[in-house]
Amino acid sequence: MPVVVTRIDRVEEAVVAGFQDFGVATVHEAQGRKGLMASYMRPIYRPVQIAGPAVTCEVAPGDNWTIHVAVEQCQPGDVLVVTPTSPCEDGFFGDLLATSLKARGVRGLIINGGVRDIATLTEMQFPVWSRAVYARGCVRETVGNVNVPIVCADALVNPGDLIVADDDGVVVVPQPDAKNVLEKTQAREALEERKRLRFEAGELGLDMYDMRERLKEKGVRYIESLKDA
Amino acid sequence: MPVVVTRIDRVEEAVVAGFQDFGVATVHEAQGRKGLMASYMRPIYRPVQIAGPAVTCEVAPGDNWTIHVAVEQCQPGDVLVVTPTSPCEDGFFGDLLATSLKARGVRGLIINGGVRDIATLTEMQFPVWSRAVYARGCVRETVGNVNVPIVCADALVNPGDLIVADDDGVVVVPQPDAKNVLEKTQAREALEERKRLRFEAGELGLDMYDMRERLKEKGVRYIESLKDA
Amino acid sequence: MPVVVTRIDRVEEAVVAGFQDFGVATVHEAQGRKGLMASYMRPIYRPVQIAGPAVTCEVAPGDNWTIHVAVEQCQPGDVLVVTPTSPCEDGFFGDLLATSLKARGVRGLIINGGVRDIATLTEMQFPVWSRAVYARGCVRETVGNVNVPIVCADALVNPGDLIVADDDGVVVVPQPDAKNVLEKTQAREALEERKRLRFEAGELGLDMYDMRERLKEKGVRYIESLKDA
Amino acid sequence: MPVVVTRIDRVEEAVVAGFQDFGVATVHEAQGRKGLMASYMRPIYRPVQIAGPAVTCEVAPGDNWTIHVAVEQCQPGDVLVVTPTSPCEDGFFGDLLATSLKARGVRGLIINGGVRDIATLTEMQFPVWSRAVYARGCVRETVGNVNVPIVCADALVNPGDLIVADDDGVVVVPQPDAKNVLEKTQAREALEERKRLRFEAGELGLDMYDMRERLKEKGVRYIESLKDA
Amino acid sequence: MPVVVTRIDRVEEAVVAGFQDFGVATVHEAQGRKGLMASYMRPIYRPVQIAGPAVTCEVAPGDNWTIHVAVEQCQPGDVLVVTPTSPCEDGFFGDLLATSLKARGVRGLIINGGVRDIATLTEMQFPVWSRAVYARGCVRETVGNVNVPIVCADALVNPGDLIVADDDGVVVVPQPDAKNVLEKTQAREALEERKRLRFEAGELGLDMYDMRERLKEKGVRYIESLKDA
Amino acid sequence: MPVVVTRIDRVEEAVVAGFQDFGVATVHEAQGRKGLMASYMRPIYRPVQIAGPAVTCEVAPGDNWTIHVAVEQCQPGDVLVVTPTSPCEDGFFGDLLATSLKARGVRGLIINGGVRDIATLTEMQFPVWSRAVYARGCVRETVGNVNVPIVCADALVNPGDLIVADDDGVVVVPQPDAKNVLEKTQAREALEERKRLRFEAGELGLDMYDMRERLKEKGVRYIESLKDA
Repeated sequence: MPVVVTRIDRVEEAVVAGFQDFGVATVHEAQGRKGLMASYMRPIYRPVQIAGPAVTCEVAPGDNWTIHVAVEQCQPGDVLVVTPTSPCEDGFFGDLLATSLKARGVRGLIINGGVRDIATLTEMQFPVWSRAVYARGCVRETVGNVNVPIVCADALVNPGDLIVADDDGVVVVPQPDAKNVLEKTQAREALEERKRLRFEAGELGLDMYDMRERLKEKGVRYIESLKDA
Repeated sequence: MPVVVTRIDRVEEAVVAGFQDFGVATVHEAQGRKGLMASYMRPIYRPVQIAGPAVTCEVAPGDNWTIHVAVEQCQPGDVLVVTPTSPCEDGFFGDLLATSLKARGVRGLIINGGVRDIATLTEMQFPVWSRAVYARGCVRETVGNVNVPIVCADALVNPGDLIVADDDGVVVVPQPDAKNVLEKTQAREALEERKRLRFEAGELGLDMYDMRERLKEKGVRYIESLKDA
Repeated sequence: MPVVVTRIDRVEEAVVAGFQDFGVATVHEAQGRKGLMASYMRPIYRPVQIAGPAVTCEVAPGDNWTIHVAVEQCQPGDVLVVTPTSPCEDGFFGDLLATSLKARGVRGLIINGGVRDIATLTEMQFPVWSRAVYARGCVRETVGNVNVPIVCADALVNPGDLIVADDDGVVVVPQPDAKNVLEKTQAREALEERKRLRFEAGELGLDMYDMRERLKEKGVRYIESLKDA
Repeated sequence: MPVVVTRIDRVEEAVVAGFQDFGVATVHEAQGRKGLMASYMRPIYRPVQIAGPAVTCEVAPGDNWTIHVAVEQCQPGDVLVVTPTSPCEDGFFGDLLATSLKARGVRGLIINGGVRDIATLTEMQFPVWSRAVYARGCVRETVGNVNVPIVCADALVNPGDLIVADDDGVVVVPQPDAKNVLEKTQAREALEERKRLRFEAGELGLDMYDMRERLKEKGVRYIESLKDA
Repeated sequence: MPVVVTRIDRVEEAVVAGFQDFGVATVHEAQGRKGLMASYMRPIYRPVQIAGPAVTCEVAPGDNWTIHVAVEQCQPGDVLVVTPTSPCEDGFFGDLLATSLKARGVRGLIINGGVRDIATLTEMQFPVWSRAVYARGCVRETVGNVNVPIVCADALVNPGDLIVADDDGVVVVPQPDAKNVLEKTQAREALEERKRLRFEAGELGLDMYDMRERLKEKGVRYIESLKDA
Repeated sequence: MPVVVTRIDRVEEAVVAGFQDFGVATVHEAQGRKGLMASYMRPIYRPVQIAGPAVTCEVAPGDNWTIHVAVEQCQPGDVLVVTPTSPCEDGFFGDLLATSLKARGVRGLIINGGVRDIATLTEMQFPVWSRAVYARGCVRETVGNVNVPIVCADALVNPGDLIVADDDGVVVVPQPDAKNVLEKTQAREALEERKRLRFEAGELGLDMYDMRERLKEKGVRYIESLKDA
């Protein structure tokens, strides 16, 4: 029997706000290279960046009834994360549902399925990351779960977890780790900024990362021509 | 032996004109969720929308000779629909053929294969929906059929059928149904506009569609925590 | 044992410069339809066009150490071409490496794998053609070869070969053939320009290419209706 | 509203019987290289061959209710052809439905989706060609059409059309053409048998098909080494 | 830093033994259609069936070092479950590792990557379900985690969970649910057996499941010809 | 203009014979993990193993004329390697061409495209590795090259190179390296045999490869529960 969980532990907004300036790649690195969704999850327009706590939603293939149920569970600042129980590219979501989510202050949609009305969604500037763009309509016959743990595009998402999404894709930060990951992300960003300046000045990664000695140990040979190999 | 059918029953222009304002998702819904091409058929630039009667063209894989034959059968306002007889992403179509089609007043190309010169096509604003972008050139050795029924990207297309294409993909409306589908599309669009206003005002789909009672019948349980499940 | 070849025969810059105005489709045709990379190699932004000699780089899946080694071998005007030894979409390359390449005057990156930080790369206008966009980070444990012949996305690339890349994809011109292919490309472009004018004026390919007689020989029949077939 | 068409024009059994000895490749050639399903349609065991008239069935993704409706429309000797309205690999069919079909004398199943219980189906020797093997179960909430024309895996199938399927895949012969295609298939098979004997005796295709002169016309050059090119 | 968890709560062998007779489809149904791995996970030979508690193993792409670490954590009756941290089809596993696992009494391998030496593995009758068959060798430079929760081919696997795998694919039963799911599986199997007999006797699903009335409610129309629609 | 190279340097038969007992994985390792074809190249039946020098053949998509030209260039013991100039799964090859190749003593076919008549090919025991099984027929209009270097399924193949193929896939050994690679393969096989005995006796890879110290250096921690992490 399907359940709708009405209380979830959301990442607190102060922490979410801290992530608004950071990209998916940096966050993914900062939390130890975990939680990344599959490369097929692409934004419908670019550039774009959002961060917010996840409301999770499981739908049956070709059936978007549960999304309507999930909308009611969304609060301002949330990100709705939807996955079908088996791979399906149908257009589970379009401009009407986007209007509804926007009215509730939802920041965007992550859907391991199809989306439609993307011209309107782009005009509305309602961000969506999806597996496909596909106009195929859905029925409303089977109800799935809302706010249960789901596997979405290779990533485990617990309700309330932090979602960060941008041009590079989507990453999930577990709610209990979010504050700690924010600090690591800030530290990493600062470090990367320093490296960027050195790279701009022409310094090589080989020198910046002290790689030359280790390359020798690996037996790398510098030769003028393959004939010397 | 290949045939070129020279007389086809085109959707009449007055009806076509009625479709210029409508999106693929709406038309697809209005005609009972039929006739949609596969999700891999994507436009080379966005936003874009066209509508027009289909001239159909079957090519051999890696061979675009038949497209030249089909061009002559095109009239102003037509949409050329091309499919290879087996899956092939070669660049069957580029800026020269686009120039030729544009000179004849053709509105766009739907091709279940590859397209090339997309920078120029974008500058020319000649719309193309394709399976791939690929510069691979074609030979001209084998002739296929023009204006016979074809299966293109999961959809049956009869010559003269209405093609509607936009950012969401491509839908086919059978020529005999076009007028009727237009009326249904207009009705649906009006209905959706009314729903949009209600969603904007914060009404939930759960209430708008009277779903709450039916959810109970389905046994959906609202709980505060999974531990209560 | 990995090798780094430090001397390669680059296509000379005078020849490279000649290619700056030409598209991939034209160059591919001019050299006899060879050397095209697979259709999945797509630019991260459009429109874009580059030409330059290849520095080649083989990486292990999930490991971008060798790219740092390859950067040092790049000269102003070069194009870095990277392929993993087995299919892998990891984000081998991001904004730091792009900053480093840009500081050396490198014109762009071709990578048969994933790329990340594409919002920043787009802002920097550093062109990348890749198999995927994916934030997944890489380790630096295994060194591969630099400036050895590689197979990248269906194409053989020898170090120093000319790379031409644009909205349509990527083509490789062998270094010894580059000058000759440039002449053929220029001739072809001129020819295409003349054809374009004729197409614009409404001339049909059927007439321009004298196809009508050959169509008859192939047995093509023009009929008014399929019932006549 | 879904319809079930109860009267269909089946290919007559005498004609069907004639096809029992022929392979898909031969039939496909004999009818002018039409009607072939996509290469992803594979049999669950080999070797296998069937022929019979099609009962067609459209299902919603993730929903196999309509298959139960279709079973009743099947007669001994039929082949059930099922396609979801959008791509879906769910396990629409398993050993219970196979038992039911077998009890009615149905010869096999063609399904543009998933199948399960294949160990049991193999033991039962009930032949299935499918897009996937996948244990995922289905709901029974949405009814589709039975015995209407469908597009299944790139091929148009009208109810009553002849299906021939073997280790190579699946081909559809339109019911009105079946007798004529049978004659052509028999003629082709006889011709191929003669060719086979000549090939076995060492004769080359170059000579059997008189290709040598035409190769010269195409400009083919025989050289001892690429250096002579 | 990678961790190896040395104590895990395995499904008890008495329960595991109960699953030895049941197929993946039945178990998947019995536990509410959860826990199924993706359809691309296929056995290297058929027929085959195993059940056992999972030892989980995360590897870096192209790197099988961690599998050696995991072997030591395996006990007789276990099933080793391996996933790379990003999609990779390299041959992480071959006959030597299979010999090692077999010596420890391990029942089989589930790997979301490639496998090699499948001729030998088939002779040894060591069962493997994999994403690909690929001879590509791996390095041993990066260590991943052993016996941590992983997402493998769409399914969440906790160490100690029950794995059931057969010709249809792979399903995961959470360790705490295993006993309960076994009872449901046994009940379901008994029920299916009864249905099978009724289907064999010619009873229709339409009658067995009392579908006729509900079909009428859905508006399904039985007509003799599409012209009546 | 297409060329047919009539003299190629074949790997000598004595060396080829040495490879008849070795698998693809072992040969691939022995030559430094190069030359492996893509994982989608699968044999039509199993078990199977062949080795022999390559005759190379480039075909146009959907056109198998060049295969007839290539047959004449084959000698007893050869392996024919065919690739289309762009991806194409058409059935370029069937039982007639197999009969012709068998009559010439050719050992098998490697084709980066489709094959048909696989039931007959299996009966004949004529080995084929292909990208697809597909009955789609081909035309004979465009001639490609025979015995020129080709890129086939990610691997560079020069005419005369050694092809080794088995249940795991296909590997290419450059003709000049073949003798040396044979020695390394024999050495590796002997080494693997010794390891196999140790694994059978229960020795762990961790000990056999002295990994424990290095794992410590990598910071791997053995813990009883994730709570200790």
